[in-house]
Amino acid sequence: MSEERGSLSVRAVRGSAIRDLLAVVEQPGVLSLAGGLPAPELLPTERTARAAQAALASPAALQYGVTAGAPPLREVVHARESTKLGRDAGTVVITHGSQQALSLLAQALLDPGDTVIVEDPGYIGALQAFDTTRARVVGVPLDAGGMRVDELRSILQRERVRIVHTVSNFHNPGGATLTEERRRELARLADEFGFWIVEDDPYGELRFAGPTVPPVAAFSDRVIRLSSASKIVAPGLRVGWMHGDAGVLALVERLKQGADLCGSSLTQAVTAELLADTVWLDGHVETIRSVYGERARALHTALTDAFGDRLRLTTPEGGMFLWGEFADGTATSANLGEAVDAGVAYVPGSAFAVQRDLAHSLRLCFTTSPPDELREAVRRLSTVL
Amino acid sequence: MSEERGSLSVRAVRGSAIRDLLAVVEQPGVLSLAGGLPAPELLPTERTARAAQAALASPAALQYGVTAGAPPLREVVHARESTKLGRDAGTVVITHGSQQALSLLAQALLDPGDTVIVEDPGYIGALQAFDTTRARVVGVPLDAGGMRVDELRSILQRERVRIVHTVSNFHNPGGATLTEERRRELARLADEFGFWIVEDDPYGELRFAGPTVPPVAAFSDRVIRLSSASKIVAPGLRVGWMHGDAGVLALVERLKQGADLCGSSLTQAVTAELLADTVWLDGHVETIRSVYGERARALHTALTDAFGDRLRLTTPEGGMFLWGEFADGTATSANLGEAVDAGVAYVPGSAFAVQRDLAHSLRLCFTTSPPDELREAVRRLSTVL
Repeated sequence: MSEERGSLSVRAVRGSAIRDLLAVVEQPGVLSLAGGLPAPELLPTERTARAAQAALASPAALQYGVTAGAPPLREVVHARESTKLGRDAGTVVITHGSQQALSLLAQALLDPGDTVIVEDPGYIGALQAFDTTRARVVGVPLDAGGMRVDELRSILQRERVRIVHTVSNFHNPGGATLTEERRRELARLADEFGFWIVEDDPYGELRFAGPTVPPVAAFSDRVIRLSSASKIVAPGLRVGWMHGDAGVLALVERLKQGADLCGSSLTQAVTAELLADTVWLDGHVETIRSVYGERARALHTALTDAFGDRLRLTTPEGGMFLWGEFADGTATSANLGEAVDAGVAYVPGSAFAVQRDLAHSLRLCFTTSPPDELREAVRRLSTVL
Repeated sequence: MSEERGSLSVRAVRGSAIRDLLAVVEQPGVLSLAGGLPAPELLPTERTARAAQAALASPAALQYGVTAGAPPLREVVHARESTKLGRDAGTVVITHGSQQALSLLAQALLDPGDTVIVEDPGYIGALQAFDTTRARVVGVPLDAGGMRVDELRSILQRERVRIVHTVSNFHNPGGATLTEERRRELARLADEFGFWIVEDDPYGELRFAGPTVPPVAAFSDRVIRLSSASKIVAPGLRVGWMHGDAGVLALVERLKQGADLCGSSLTQAVTAELLADTVWLDGHVETIRSVYGERARALHTALTDAFGDRLRLTTPEGGMFLWGEFADGTATSANLGEAVDAGVAYVPGSAFAVQRDLAHSLRLCFTTSPPDELREAVRRLSTVL
């Protein structure tokens, strides 16, 4: 409430401006590509109901749990992470969605004034978590190959950095995936300069095109990996996790005790069962990939047909978002009102800007609309932009 | 991680010392009165399973929810709070257990160095939440009538206080309930001196003896009330809430966005159904009251028979804990190891001390042991203390 809270207020206001926008576009008749939700028709209600019934055979599902998370869930997450990394390393703390992981890591690792690097455009949840600690948030530009690690190197030569945050796969909002070469270089820099990499990877399993790239954590132990059940099972469970260095995670566990004591034994038991049922999970994730891939291609094609060279687009290989930049200076923020009037919504690039001018960019979410709706949304967009 | 984090570390270590202790006493053969869990046999697994099935008929139970909490849950909580207060006031934010409510309120209202008043002995979760903000935590002694509001008044005449935290009913760990006269005086002081009262009331509905006292919030608008489903339904749902001033709660809602985006749509839908089913809930809470009342009386009688005037005990009227103080200087911390060897465990008073010397006190939880076990536990205690 004091003056010092200034930076928090600015970002909180920005966050709520987007929430206000999202509230407006929930009008009937508006085709919204502004959201960031999984497709509701793919949420596994029946399988989850069976898992809930099984969990509730025991009162343990309704009792307090341990702060670090239910042991069976920690084990299955650890096994999955070890497979991804190609080695058995680190420990796991279960969090209340991966947003809590970000928030606790920020508390654990940052003092006011510490420098933290984010991508520009940046993931808004990370910006909010870092701002709360009154850290100095510095953006490094994102291009089609992910974070410009060469620009990060120049910053590191000038100042001490505590955390580098990256959404390594299918960036939100930028759509880009960090190339393997840059991952190796980023890992080398962490070892050389002693910062922590926070590899925020909610979308990594949602790849529908192109070859898989190893996680940044495959190349260094100075990486804390975050992910969650939100995009592969369901966000309503609020089950996220953090994997990495035991010392950092022990500090996070202590802070979690003060933050909320522990997570829900019920949703953790449900998630443990669903993640361990690999036959079901593999099929389920394959369905999500296939549906999202079809939608991403439909949106990309429609946008290319409508705008041609005027709109530079990321090539969709996974995740939930396309990012576009108008080469001819079309202003996305200024035109949003008119777009909503025409029955279509998106998030203007400026909402994600750290230091860059993103006034001609926009984020489009392809997950919650079938191809025909996406094509109609683009038709409406083309009448305005 | 810097030097500034000193106070956090001290408290975190204290918290984990108790956790280490609790881990030790989970040995077979040890009758533990050291815990603080609801009786597992009273957790409503079947009713919850039915509610979960009903909620999972809709994908909305698995989707992201709004940050302030699911509207049907906010409505039923608001109605319950209005009934308790005797007037329709304030708004509601749903939190991840009431520990998250404490943590977000601390973030929202406190700057480093601000003074916050707690009871001494104090609720450890509150101490942890306030320490995280690096506030100055000052204890006011607790007696059989709750917080010594006269002592609070002398502090207020010396320094500016931002928050006064009170567990108004059946204090954890002190067992005491704040008298109505002191509630009125505390409310008057909040209005006069402009601080916020955080009325932390998880146990209020667990009264098994004596007349109900109106909440502190009945006497002032400068009260934020916290409670949860943990003690009346189940802690494993992790559904808590905050009720009070719309301005403070709007700030908390913004901070919650950075902390974890939103709560679980599934556990919120389940909790909304269970709280709205008043026929079931009233019967369920009546069962808890009756079982806990029987256990509390059994423990109180056995302790009085065994220790007589040597042990000053709170008179149990509700909640989950008895607090005792040895009048003859028996040291509870020093004797804990021997007690565990004799097959019984408790939490020494020093674990809850803010500024007072509580070396001769102890907290005993009566909820998870039937009367015979409680009597046997006291017999073992009497061989050591």
